[in-house]
Formats: sequence, C-alpha cells, structure tokens
Amino acid sequence: MKVLRQFYNYYLSEDKDLARRMYALLGFVPANLYLFKLAFFHKSSAHIQDTPLHNNERLEYLGDAVLGTVVAEYLFKKYPISDEGFLTKMRSKIVKRKMLNDLASDMGLDFLLNEYNTTRLSSSMLGNAFEALIGAIYLDRGYRGTRRFIVRKVLRKYLDIHGLETFDDNFKSQLLEWCQKHGKEAEFKVVSRFKHDKRDRFKVAVIVAGEKISIAEDYNKKSAEQSASEKALLQMGVLAEDENE
Amino acid sequence: MKVLRQFYNYYLSEDKDLARRMYALLGFVPANLYLFKLAFFHKSSAHIQDTPLHNNERLEYLGDAVLGTVVAEYLFKKYPISDEGFLTKMRSKIVKRKMLNDLASDMGLDFLLNEYNTTRLSSSMLGNAFEALIGAIYLDRGYRGTRRFIVRKVLRKYLDIHGLETFDDNFKSQLLEWCQKHGKEAEFKVVSRFKHDKRDRFKVAVIVAGEKISIAEDYNKKSAEQSASEKALLQMGVLAEDENE
Repeated sequence: MKVLRQFYNYYLSEDKDLARRMYALLGFVPANLYLFKLAFFHKSSAHIQDTPLHNNERLEYLGDAVLGTVVAEYLFKKYPISDEGFLTKMRSKIVKRKMLNDLASDMGLDFLLNEYNTTRLSSSMLGNAFEALIGAIYLDRGYRGTRRFIVRKVLRKYLDIHGLETFDDNFKSQLLEWCQKHGKEAEFKVVSRFKHDKRDRFKVAVIVAGEKISIAEDYNKKSAEQSASEKALLQMGVLAEDENE
Repeated sequence: MKVLRQFYNYYLSEDKDLARRMYALLGFVPANLYLFKLAFFHKSSAHIQDTPLHNNERLEYLGDAVLGTVVAEYLFKKYPISDEGFLTKMRSKIVKRKMLNDLASDMGLDFLLNEYNTTRLSSSMLGNAFEALIGAIYLDRGYRGTRRFIVRKVLRKYLDIHGLETFDDNFKSQLLEWCQKHGKEAEFKVVSRFKHDKRDRFKVAVIVAGEKISIAEDYNKKSAEQSASEKALLQMGVLAEDENE
C-alpha cells in the first residue's frame, strides 16, 4: 500500500513536483505528501485557513521534540565517555535557533518556503520549517526513518561537530583573527583585580585600535578575556546575538 | 540471543532479583541488566566510582529527551485539533520536575533508589532516576518499546490528564476549597482599577480570615484573581513552588 502511494505521488499526483524534490532532499518519496506541503505553510501566509491544522506549527512542535531526541542520542553514542554536562551543552549548540536556520538554509529549504508562502521570509521561519519537516518525516516514516534522515542527510553532511566542541572557547581567537584581518591592533588589559567571596576576581577590557570596546569580569583572567572578547565581537557586529529557543 | 539473555537474567543471574522487579515494573525482562542497575546509581553515592560511566547522569540526559518526544507525540495524537501553544503548555506541565518526582514515586522507584544508594534520597533524585530508567529502556528496547512503556505504564496509569488541562485556571477554586476546609473566610477585593496602555487594569487582593495575604494585577479581574490566588496559596504554603527544569 505504502509503495503504491509513493509510486502515485512520484509519477501521477498533481504534487509530483513536490514529491520529486522531497525525494532529492530526503532520499525517499513521502507516502503522505500532504504533511510535507503543510510543513512549509507558515501561519502568516494569507492563502491558508487560520486554524492549527492548516499551518506548520503543530508539525514544528513535534519535529522540535524528535530532533532533540535524535541529536541527544547521536551525541550520546558519538561521545561514549563524556559526561552529561558536555552532552547537554553540545546538544543546545546544535538545536539552537540560529543553527537550525543555518542548517535549513544549507538544505535549500528557503526555495521551498518561498514557493508556498506569500509573505516575506524571516530567518526564523527557516528553522521552524526545518522542524516541521522533521515532524512530517516522523509521521510518515517513524522514529528510525527520521533518525536516519537527520543523521545522514543533516548532521553528517552540514554540521561541523568538531568546530562546535571547541566553539565556546574561541572568542578571543576569533577577535584576534578579525583584528588581524582588518589591520587593527587588539589588546587585553586587566583593569582591576579584587577579592570577591575570598577569591580573586579579574576585570578585563578589550581595546581595539586604541579604543575600549568592552569589559567583563570573572574569577580567572582567561574566562574574563573570553567574555570580554565575546562582548566585543557582538559590539562590533562581527557576531550576531543568538536567539535561543 | 536477546531471549537467552533475558532468560539468564531472570533465572540465573546474580541480579535476578532486579530482573524480576523490572519485569513487574516494566512488563519485560531487560536484556542488558547493567543499564537498569546504573539507572539507580546516583553520583552522590560513595560506593560507585566517580566517572560519568558509573552513575545515572548520562542515562538521565538521554531519557529526558526520549520522554519529551514520547509525551509530545502522545499529546499531538490525543489532541488532534489543538494548537501548538496548548500542546507545548501541556507538555511542560507533564515533564516538569515536580511531576516527574511524583510519577516516579507512584511507580515505587523510591524503594529501588534506596537500595542502590547510600545517601539520603532527595525528591529530585526520584525524577532523575525516572528519566535514567527511560534512558535505559531506550537503549534496551528502542524507541517503540520505550513509547509503549511510557504510554501504557506511566501516562495512562498515573497521569490525570484532564485535570492538567484545566490546571492553570483553578487557583481561585483551590483557594476557596482550602479555606472552606479550614473554616476560614476568603474574600477577593478590587483594590484599585486604573488605565494602563489605554486599557483597564485591575489590582486584586486576597483576604483570608480578615488578613491581606497577596495582591496581583492584570488586564481583567478574573486573571488578577487567579494570580492573586496562586500567590496566596504559595504564601500560605498550600502550593509548593515548582522547580521547573
């Protein structure tokens, strides 16, 4: 039955164009093509009815959960001796809004979204459609099929997981790199050092081309430099503020 | 092979006692019994080595994700026409820390925890062990087996889902009920009414036995009464503050 429906969708249905694009994207022809159309319907679009059943929000809710589990399991198995804190941190780096938007854009979901929506695309619509697509895959293929898609077609293909591992710690080097590229001198300066809760606390300033850009403090110099660098990168518009989920 | 291992675990293994209790609790004999022992090892216990592989935190991390997905799907199917906002709210009511502790206690996990840990139990250890148990089931049985367990042996058995649907709105009736039971008079009083952003805003006080207990404000009287009632219930120690995850 399922094979028949897939055959129909691919060769005969009036949505065969979508079926073929889904095949190229997902590696299989959806049996329930309607779900995959729905996944790209944003509620702001005028051509659809205003009920929860006619936009992608319910699918997004489901896909968000499934994606979280697949990523959790993927990391659990990839890092067999890491502790829970590391795994949790890695997971939130992967499922955060900005990363989902980027992954969706790498997958070319923006083209599909443009086709099905009359309103202008915002970047968060991309990540949402990605989650909704996962919800649709889950309903069409079950957990294992969804896991296969996410691991093979998304995580292994587009995710720089080793970059993510160290991502937290490289604000200082990002800043230095940026400054070098733009021919500006960067300097870190300990502005003050004092006792707090009987521990040393450091206040560090980032100075770029002679101008003080940011200040941050922490219990050790290195962490204070990291925070100050992150602030400076945000300040100068090099980094964009993440909207966390 | 799996059946043989289950047979061994149930009849011959030195942990056959645990295997039998798991059978009673879960409806199946675990193939990998070690995981189920691990699920009850809290890191505070002295008898285990201090590595992530010898306590239940990694399993808890995994189980937390799987539980979230199973609950998300359960609600998605149970409420086929509800919107995403309702589903999200329901889901967070179910997976919040206090609810997990209660469910774990209903399932009798406290007995198992006591056996495997030398330290005193805290209530959050219960919910964590419940999540770790789900992680163990997932690794032993896969997604479908875990879903079957959660839906049949936990959600349908212990969860008052219709109570949860309306839970948000009944602080006022909870307060009135409590007062009646304790022979105290409760009164709601609009203390002030003013314009804010061109809209009416109401400030309502809860007075119990002549004493002003709490005050809250909102754009309509009913909502202000609800918030004030919740505050009063917390104030009087009838409700406990939820630690959300």
